[in-house]
Formats: sequence, C-alpha cells, structure tokens
Amino acid sequence: MEKRRLYMDYSATTPVKKEVLDAMMPYLTDYFGNASSFHTFGREAKNALDKAREQVANLVNAKPSEIYFTAGGTESDNWALEGVAFAHREKGNHIITSKIEHHGILHTCEYLEKHHGFEVTYLDVDSEGKVSLEQLEAAIKDNTILISIMFANNEIGTVQPIAEIAKIAKKHKVLFHTDAVQAAGNIPIDVKELDVDLMSMSSHKIYGPKGIGALYIKTGTKLHTFVHGGAQERRRRAGTENIPSIVGYGKAAEIAKSNMENHVKNLTELRAKLINQILEKIPYTRVNGSLDDRLPGNVNFSFEFIEGEGILLLLDMLGIAASSGSACTSGSLDPSHVLMAIGLPHEIAHGSLRLTIGDFTTEDDIDYIIEHLPAVIERLRSMSPLYDQAMKNK
Amino acid sequence: MEKRRLYMDYSATTPVKKEVLDAMMPYLTDYFGNASSFHTFGREAKNALDKAREQVANLVNAKPSEIYFTAGGTESDNWALEGVAFAHREKGNHIITSKIEHHGILHTCEYLEKHHGFEVTYLDVDSEGKVSLEQLEAAIKDNTILISIMFANNEIGTVQPIAEIAKIAKKHKVLFHTDAVQAAGNIPIDVKELDVDLMSMSSHKIYGPKGIGALYIKTGTKLHTFVHGGAQERRRRAGTENIPSIVGYGKAAEIAKSNMENHVKNLTELRAKLINQILEKIPYTRVNGSLDDRLPGNVNFSFEFIEGEGILLLLDMLGIAASSGSACTSGSLDPSHVLMAIGLPHEIAHGSLRLTIGDFTTEDDIDYIIEHLPAVIERLRSMSPLYDQAMKNK
Ligand SMILES: Cc1ncc(COP(=O)(O)O)c(C=O)c1O
Ligand SMILES: Cc1ncc(COP(=O)(O)O)c(C=O)c1O
Repeated sequence: MEKRRLYMDYSATTPVKKEVLDAMMPYLTDYFGNASSFHTFGREAKNALDKAREQVANLVNAKPSEIYFTAGGTESDNWALEGVAFAHREKGNHIITSKIEHHGILHTCEYLEKHHGFEVTYLDVDSEGKVSLEQLEAAIKDNTILISIMFANNEIGTVQPIAEIAKIAKKHKVLFHTDAVQAAGNIPIDVKELDVDLMSMSSHKIYGPKGIGALYIKTGTKLHTFVHGGAQERRRRAGTENIPSIVGYGKAAEIAKSNMENHVKNLTELRAKLINQILEKIPYTRVNGSLDDRLPGNVNFSFEFIEGEGILLLLDMLGIAASSGSACTSGSLDPSHVLMAIGLPHEIAHGSLRLTIGDFTTEDDIDYIIEHLPAVIERLRSMSPLYDQAMKNK
Repeated sequence: MEKRRLYMDYSATTPVKKEVLDAMMPYLTDYFGNASSFHTFGREAKNALDKAREQVANLVNAKPSEIYFTAGGTESDNWALEGVAFAHREKGNHIITSKIEHHGILHTCEYLEKHHGFEVTYLDVDSEGKVSLEQLEAAIKDNTILISIMFANNEIGTVQPIAEIAKIAKKHKVLFHTDAVQAAGNIPIDVKELDVDLMSMSSHKIYGPKGIGALYIKTGTKLHTFVHGGAQERRRRAGTENIPSIVGYGKAAEIAKSNMENHVKNLTELRAKLINQILEKIPYTRVNGSLDDRLPGNVNFSFEFIEGEGILLLLDMLGIAASSGSACTSGSLDPSHVLMAIGLPHEIAHGSLRLTIGDFTTEDDIDYIIEHLPAVIERLRSMSPLYDQAMKNK
C-alpha cells in the first residue's frame, strides 16, 4: 500500500493547479523572451505580462496599473513598509501595526526601529485575534505615517475589520497597508470598496507558483522604490520580469475569482465538520481565532497538556502534513507570537495544531483526520506528566 | 514556410534548458511543500533546496553556506549595496563603483546618495570599458566602505580585472562586491581565488528560470538583511523559498560548470567568425568592448550613420531577435550609458547592435545573420541623410 499523502497545510503553501501549470508551460519553453526586449520574443512576453496583470487586478477589483509584481508576499510587505516610511519621513516617523502580523511585517518594523529611527506601536489583539478600533484610533499621533494591519491571520485565520480600519486611517490622513497574503484569492476582496492604499498578495497561497506576488498601490500613493534597477513595473520594481510565474499567478487569480463562491462554501462546510467533530471527540481542546470572521480553510486547535511538535510528528507518520504555528518560524522553540498575543498561556500555546484545508481537500480527508487525530492526542497525553497530574487533581 | 525564430539576445535572457525544466517539474507538481514546514512535504522541499545550494556554490567554488538565494540579479545587487551601506555607516558613507554598471547598481547608488546620505564615486572606464586600477586606488578614502565593480559588462561584454580589484580593496580594508550576473556560469569563476566578498548572480542568464538568483556572501562579511521576515536562508533573506526555480537554477549551474570548457570554446569560435565577417562585409563599423577580455557570447557593433532601433526592426522582420543597449532600459531614447562611457559620440552610440549568442546558437545561425545583416545596414544607410552627406564629402 502506498503511503497516504494527506496535505493539510494549505496556509503554508498550496499545490499548483494543473490549469495554472498548463498556462505557464509555454513561457517555460518556447516563449522565453525578456518582456523588456524590443523584438518578437520580447513582445510575446510583454503581452503575457499585461494579461496577468489584468487577471490579478481583477481578483481584488484594482486597476491593472495599480498592480506591481514582486517576488512574493514578504517582499510586498517590506516594500510597503520601507517604501512608505522612507518617503514620508519628513511628515513623521511613527508606524502602527499589530502584535499578530506575519514576520514579514514585524521584522521589517523592528529593522526600521533599530536602524532607521522609526517608532512603531504594536497593537494588542483580543482573545479572537482582533485589533480594537478604539485602541487603533487612540494610537494615531501627529507623526503617524502608516497603519499596517493584516487582512487575515495565517495562524488562527481571524479576519480583521479592514473597512473600518481604512475609514479610521482615512479620517486621520494616514496611509493604510494590509497584508492580504492569506486573504487575496481565498475570500472576496474589493480594494475600492474597502479603500485601502496598499495591499500585499502572494501567488503560492492560491494555487499559483512560489516566488511571485504583488503589491497593490492605489493610484497616487507616494512610496519609494524598494528594488532599484531597470525600468520594469513602470520604473517602480526592477528586475527581469518573471514571466512564467507571473502568468501562473494571473491564471491562479482568474480561477480564484471565478471559483470564489464555491471555494468559500466548500471549505466552510468542511471546516465546520472538522471543528465540530474534533471538539466532540477530544476533551480539553479549544479552537483558536474567531469562529465568525475566519478564513474558510483555517482550523487551529489547542490541545491541553501536550506539545505541537509531538502532534506533527505522529501525524506525519500517518501521512498527514500539518503545522504548529507559522511555517516561517519553524526551527524556533518559542511558542507562536500570535497565540501568545491572543492570551494563551505558554503551555497551551505549545500544544497547538493548525490544519489548513484547500480546494483539493475531500470529505474523505476530513474523515481520515477525524478518525486518527483522537488517538494521536490520547497517545501523547498518556505520555504527558502534566496530563497525569491534571487527571489526578480532578 | 514557418517564420524563422533566430534568437541572438542571450544576454537579455536565455531559454530554459530541457534538463533544467525536467529537474523543476516534480517540484511544480507532486513535491510542492514549503521548505520551512515540519513534515514530509517540507523535508522533500528542504532536501531539494540543499542540493541546489551545493550546485550553485560549486559553480563558483563557494561554500554552500555562502550562497543566499534571491529573486534575481537585481535583488542581489540591491542587497549587496544597501546591506553593506547601512551596516557600515559608522565606518563611512563612501562607495566606489563604475560608470558602466548595470542599473541594478547605478540606481541603487543614486538612491543611497539621494535619500540616505551616502556619497558615490563613479569611475570612468577606458575605450574598451575597463576601469583603471590606479584611478580606483586613488578614489579610496578613509570613509570608503564598499567597492562594487561588475565582473563582465552586459552590453559590450568586457571582463574587468577582478582579482586585481579585489587585491586593492583588500589592501585598503574595503569590502568588494562584483555583479557577476553575466559572468557566473558563462566564464570560469573561483571566488576563493579571486577573493571577492560579495557577488551577484542570476539564473536566467545561464539557461535557468527567471526570477531567481543568488548573492554570494563570504563567511564573516557583515551586511544588513534586505528582505525581512521569516527565518529562511539562515535568517538573512526572508520569503517562502521558491523551490522549483531554485532547483532549476541549481541544475543550470551544474550544467554550466560541467559544460564550461565547451561552452567557452564554441561561443568564442562562433563569435570570432561573426565579428570578422561583419567587419569585412560592412564598412564604417566598429566593435565595442575589449577583444581579448570579453564574454564569449557577446558581440557589439556600432554602425555609423544609422539608428539601432531601425536595425532591430528590420532584423525582427527577418526573425532575428537582437538588442541595442540593455534590455532593461528599453523605452528610453537616451543612448546607452555604457557606450557613452567608453567614449562613443552620441550618433555612433545610437547606431549600435548587440548580438549575444549562446548554447543553442549554430554555425548556420551565424551564417544567416552574416548573410542578412549587410543588406539591413545598407538599406538603412541608403535612407540616412547623414550617410548621404558623408559619402559626398569623401
Ligand atoms: C500573512 C502572511 N504574510 C506574508 C507571508 C509571506 O509571503 P511569501 O511566502 O509569499 O513571502 C505569508 C506566508 O508565508 C503570510 O501568511
Ligand atoms: C550585469 C547585470 N546585472 C544585473 C542584472 C539584473 O539581473 P536580473 O534580471 O536577474 O534581475 C542583469 C540583467 O538584466 C545584468 O546583465
């Protein structure tokens, strides 16, 4: 029997859809030209670039001229923060963000604080992972130049009140950036309606290739270039255009857009089943994040008395790929900063499991995990002195 | 008859070799995991990453731990310059580079001058495009923190005396970066022998995919991180690893290494034939760049009395893809900064043609261009009032 390969880590990265790869292949073979070149090969590439830009723009209701391709969500985050910070230094040096941002935001903020004289306010979040609009507004000062609050959290799936945040930013004439790497393509987004100024997106979270993303920059928004060089991306982001990946991202965006309703509905149903059954079957378990405002594919549990690493290990032996905290921080022994920020005690944060599902997840997959997870947790608890003690004290 | 597609623009970008694409395919399909993930899918990706890093390191005789993957040559250039500049600010704010660098270097230098208080010396080059070692040494001041001189020029192919430059840098305790985007994989490079501190490389110039490159950072070299976020690339370059492209780059590097001798020999022979025959057949023609220290695949002519744009247009109609100046500056009407720096008058710089050949170029291709180029030049000259006048004045 072949070993099962059950992937439940869609928030770390997704497989590339076949239609996406099919769209890319001509550009990995015959149509390999440089989109900046003045000849047939160049024009073929340029046309593909233009089309993909429209597809990505269309996903979030932006104008194509407001979409700038980058090498991924992290670069988009860095660009937005450093680009705005350095371009608005004269106005002020204060940035507001939250404690549960991705490290692409947090570490860039720390860099700006440590080496470039900026000051950053890290907003608390509530037990569901939401920022408080009152606290946000109270944090704005005369020298505040940027608010950056993520659209949806990569660990616990909580979706922020983006329209309200944008309204507050607007009221105080502060630029607003949102990291929508987990959101753009997974839930409906309309940048015009929401009125955000800058938004980070990434391809490999929505069945496109890795190493490509975009920054939405509302027309008229002033920020410095982050990668300097050639005249690509209308002189705002240099480097030979990564046409095959851009084409793939465009296709993935197009599919995500046309498939949105189904995608959300299917995943929300599968998610509900998974959450309900696990809560029913495994005691001393909590769901982290908001139950209402949540990415459709995100499930995040804390199982008391045990460690996430152990869960991942045993699941991996069963062929199930899952995560505990953000993939980007693996190698670290600290509990996730997100779980700490929503108020979980250390030992409970440690026993967390993120299961993220996607378009290839079947009901059968959900049944498989529901069948096997209880035994995994039980086995780990049976070896846990903490559990032993807790049961004795009952 | 199918239209000929004769690609003579290998310095703008190369096609992806079949073996390279074959190596990538499993990672674009089944093995799609995030290399930072703690499960089977993640480990598959991580193993591929490790192997590719060795392949790229091996190409230039670096240690794998000295290779950091980036999104391409431009990002590597930006990282090297900004990373060193900001990390050594206390020591000084002076950078030395040359007038014929790629815009990835020049525009980053301008940004550092304009917005971050750095001072940059742009060295002249001689008529072959070489910097003077005396001028370089004379330009070093107490506050000089970095010398950045490209390995080989993308327009005229001139290869700089890198070992000698490194020696001068070392003598004065100044860090030395070289942009080897055109060189690494096209000519033999040994970073240990040359003793460079930082070196930019790119995949899509050596038959690998676009959107991936590397920065060589000699062990112990201090520089800031450029893209902040997750712990990828040993915490020095954040962003989900672009595994399929990294695998492709690794394979391309491996092939380049094992094929080096042949590659250089074949291209040098084809180049010699092309240069000699064109000089023989077309009067009022000069070859730009050094004839001795030159990228094997680079040919750069100036044809008096006419414009490069016209040449490209007519060649394109014959199915020949060529370039006039750097692809990255297309859209601009200024003559190439490189051709100006080697002292060409405006009107001669305008009439330039770059033909860059590569591993798929055949003798037949060379014959085809030798057969058709004279008529193209003649036709354009016959319409040129400048030519008309020059002939009358003879
Ligand atoms: C919320 C969030 N922001 C940013 C990123 C970084 O995106 P990328 O991996 O494309 O660099 C990720 C994914 O890792 C993410 O989940
Ligand atoms: C000398 C040189 N440096 C840097 C670059 C930029 O590399 P990339 O296109 O990979 O960003 C190029 C190619 O355009 C180049 O020729």
